[in-house]
Amino acid sequence: MEPKQLQLNAFDMNCIGHINHGLWTHPRDRSTEFGSLAYWTELARLLERGLFDGLFIADILGVYDVYQGSIDLPLKEAIQLPVNDPLLLASALLGATTHLGFGVTANLSHEPPYLFARRLSTLDHLSQGRIGWNIVTGYLDSAARAMGQNGLVEHDRRYDQADEYLEVLYKLWEGSWEDDAVLADRAARIHTQPDKVHPVRHQGEFYRVEGYHLSAPSPQRTPVLFQAGSSERGLRFAGRHAECVFIGGSNPSAVRDQVVRVRRAAEAAGRDPQSVKLFLGISAVVATSEAEARDKLAEYRRHANPEAGLAHFSASTGIDFSRYGLDEPIRYQKTNAIESVVKTFTAPGAGWTRRRLLEQHALGGRYPLLVGSPVQVADELLHWLDDTGLDGFNLTRTVTPESHADFIDLVIPELQARGRYKTAYAEGTLREKLFGAGPRLPAEHPGSAWRSLGAAPQARRLGG
Amino acid sequence: MEPKQLQLNAFDMNCIGHINHGLWTHPRDRSTEFGSLAYWTELARLLERGLFDGLFIADILGVYDVYQGSIDLPLKEAIQLPVNDPLLLASALLGATTHLGFGVTANLSHEPPYLFARRLSTLDHLSQGRIGWNIVTGYLDSAARAMGQNGLVEHDRRYDQADEYLEVLYKLWEGSWEDDAVLADRAARIHTQPDKVHPVRHQGEFYRVEGYHLSAPSPQRTPVLFQAGSSERGLRFAGRHAECVFIGGSNPSAVRDQVVRVRRAAEAAGRDPQSVKLFLGISAVVATSEAEARDKLAEYRRHANPEAGLAHFSASTGIDFSRYGLDEPIRYQKTNAIESVVKTFTAPGAGWTRRRLLEQHALGGRYPLLVGSPVQVADELLHWLDDTGLDGFNLTRTVTPESHADFIDLVIPELQARGRYKTAYAEGTLREKLFGAGPRLPAEHPGSAWRSLGAAPQARRLGG
Repeated sequence: MEPKQLQLNAFDMNCIGHINHGLWTHPRDRSTEFGSLAYWTELARLLERGLFDGLFIADILGVYDVYQGSIDLPLKEAIQLPVNDPLLLASALLGATTHLGFGVTANLSHEPPYLFARRLSTLDHLSQGRIGWNIVTGYLDSAARAMGQNGLVEHDRRYDQADEYLEVLYKLWEGSWEDDAVLADRAARIHTQPDKVHPVRHQGEFYRVEGYHLSAPSPQRTPVLFQAGSSERGLRFAGRHAECVFIGGSNPSAVRDQVVRVRRAAEAAGRDPQSVKLFLGISAVVATSEAEARDKLAEYRRHANPEAGLAHFSASTGIDFSRYGLDEPIRYQKTNAIESVVKTFTAPGAGWTRRRLLEQHALGGRYPLLVGSPVQVADELLHWLDDTGLDGFNLTRTVTPESHADFIDLVIPELQARGRYKTAYAEGTLREKLFGAGPRLPAEHPGSAWRSLGAAPQARRLGG
Repeated sequence: MEPKQLQLNAFDMNCIGHINHGLWTHPRDRSTEFGSLAYWTELARLLERGLFDGLFIADILGVYDVYQGSIDLPLKEAIQLPVNDPLLLASALLGATTHLGFGVTANLSHEPPYLFARRLSTLDHLSQGRIGWNIVTGYLDSAARAMGQNGLVEHDRRYDQADEYLEVLYKLWEGSWEDDAVLADRAARIHTQPDKVHPVRHQGEFYRVEGYHLSAPSPQRTPVLFQAGSSERGLRFAGRHAECVFIGGSNPSAVRDQVVRVRRAAEAAGRDPQSVKLFLGISAVVATSEAEARDKLAEYRRHANPEAGLAHFSASTGIDFSRYGLDEPIRYQKTNAIESVVKTFTAPGAGWTRRRLLEQHALGGRYPLLVGSPVQVADELLHWLDDTGLDGFNLTRTVTPESHADFIDLVIPELQARGRYKTAYAEGTLREKLFGAGPRLPAEHPGSAWRSLGAAPQARRLGG
């Protein structure tokens, strides 16, 4: 068997500080231009030159107010604040790109499913099937309060709600319109055949929807489903729904472990374990030689802010690290929030001190950092891939867009020379490009079960 | 005083049949391509060539199931079904245009205000201030059911809710971030000054929001506010909030009356009555000579479907016109829904029969139809303008994009020759272009009152 080619997304966010905090102060960093379409257009075209599979756009609805119990540092260092909408950004970039996929993050806890279904169908139409959805349920209390709730819904309940939300979406996306519903026959004056369009009647625990999907079938119908949960309940959700899973981890054995767990969860849900693609979040600093790469890293570090990275980590874990002495052991209760990030981190939580955490956030973030020449970085990437069963990477930016340009100019050709990276885009939708199969959900995916909505007794007409 | 120049929006929708129904069957009509970005990009560039102020994108969430108690005809004739999202369409067109404004319709009854505020701020950033919002509260029972409600909220209550919704948005858009909050000072490591960002704490009858706006101030902050309500309660809402009002009417005296009523409502709300721009919905069929225009109209009519127009009108009024004999007088109860459309219609409702309604929908819609040579159409437009106090028009499409191309090639030069239409775009945001003043809401607009949020006692920090 040929060794597999690695798949690659740029991991970004419609904001300034995303993962590697403080680098906005670097003189060549352009992330403060994130409100400008020209900035993003240039980046998207750069990624397409590098044959990236997708631009994965993260999102958060609340603010990071755990560290020092305030948002002062998040504002000063622009730690995911301000942050603009990811879907509207993806849409704005469609015309400037042809092949690049867009993985958009949306928090289902706050998006009415009937409207959200149409939003993604619209994007899938306009992009000719280049859309993925990163399913998140939210973890910030500040987001819940902003949305008028008393507080965050309990972790496992959020996933129960998410399961039902997906069911509603599958009914709308897969079941409401049959494939041949749209005839567009001018002579016969039949745009859509009425007997091929079916109402959704959903009465669940969390949602009630009674209506027809407003959009005709888009190229992929259901967008490619991304997910990143790593708790037991999150994993069960991923096993059932996710086609791509984004994981964190700082050493190959922990990552291999997660890869195995995700594939097992898919198998437990009756799916082919190899049908789920796994992406690891990483950062890279590359130059023509190792020495130059080390110099570049040292220069970047002078602008990074480890404390800002820690403030972000405080929000992720719910622990206010500012309240500990530099060398005081950090004690915490094991919560779902912590559980879901602890795996992404180098040191086991038990050994945390603020000093060690700051060291580990030397570049402002805590993703595995590959530093070296093109050959060295390619070696490391392929080592990760072959050693863990991963399918690819979500590459974060450091100094932007410089870090992606470096990666594309230096690492991509090295990977291509080894036959481990594509030399041209495949045709078709994002799902076809990623999986080499058809544009729609595979038959074994639970979403496909709703295609027969027209045959169900509930398919009698609404209204009248 | 110079006679005023007319302002012009293209009135369209992310669907096939919008106002003039049945014309999708015309061999040169391209509206069935509405899912394609290329189709819209071409249209947007055409409008920019014609120096249109904006592309006004209508929207509807439910389906038109009143006529014949079914959606069979709406599906066959694609009467605003399928219909895709307007905001994502506007965003996709930003990169292909420089000056064109986008008036996007969104139904506030179903959009959580905290998320919606960020969506429009994002669009306003990416477009450099070219965004307007057409505020609607919805009128379809089918939409309410699709959103999981038992039925539509009562008309005047919807406007109470809308008033509160706008208050929440003003707080987020105008009050949460001060103008000089963003420093982006790399040397001082201060992107945003914490003491210039204020939390919104809203506890109202309909909404509860406790949080910071997620977006930094965009060029216009509050997008240009469009509205179209014509009921007494809707008019009070418009007088308070709307900067542009879209009206219907088939004869100058009815239109003049509405213009006066809107301006009075603005005055009653403490605003300059001339600060509200009024746009009339119209259709036009133009050719180089009157005879050719008449021929073109006759040819278009062979493809239009008056019954489809009637099905649309049934949804607007709640009256199933299919249940009446051709010459049977149509009896109905005067409801808000009817009140809000009856003014847009030629004949007084009392004299309605199905035959007369079908005649009045000869081109599939019921907007005033201007037919003739460039000189004749320009004469008529200016007559409307000068006789009624209108500021401009929302021009619907007939056979698309042909009808807009005809208008641009034939009517615009005639209007320009008379000094009644601009010969180049003004610089700046949509608000600057439309009003010749600054990019922000004028001081007398009630939204401006929330700029002092930072000085209010509620401005103490959240969290901690």
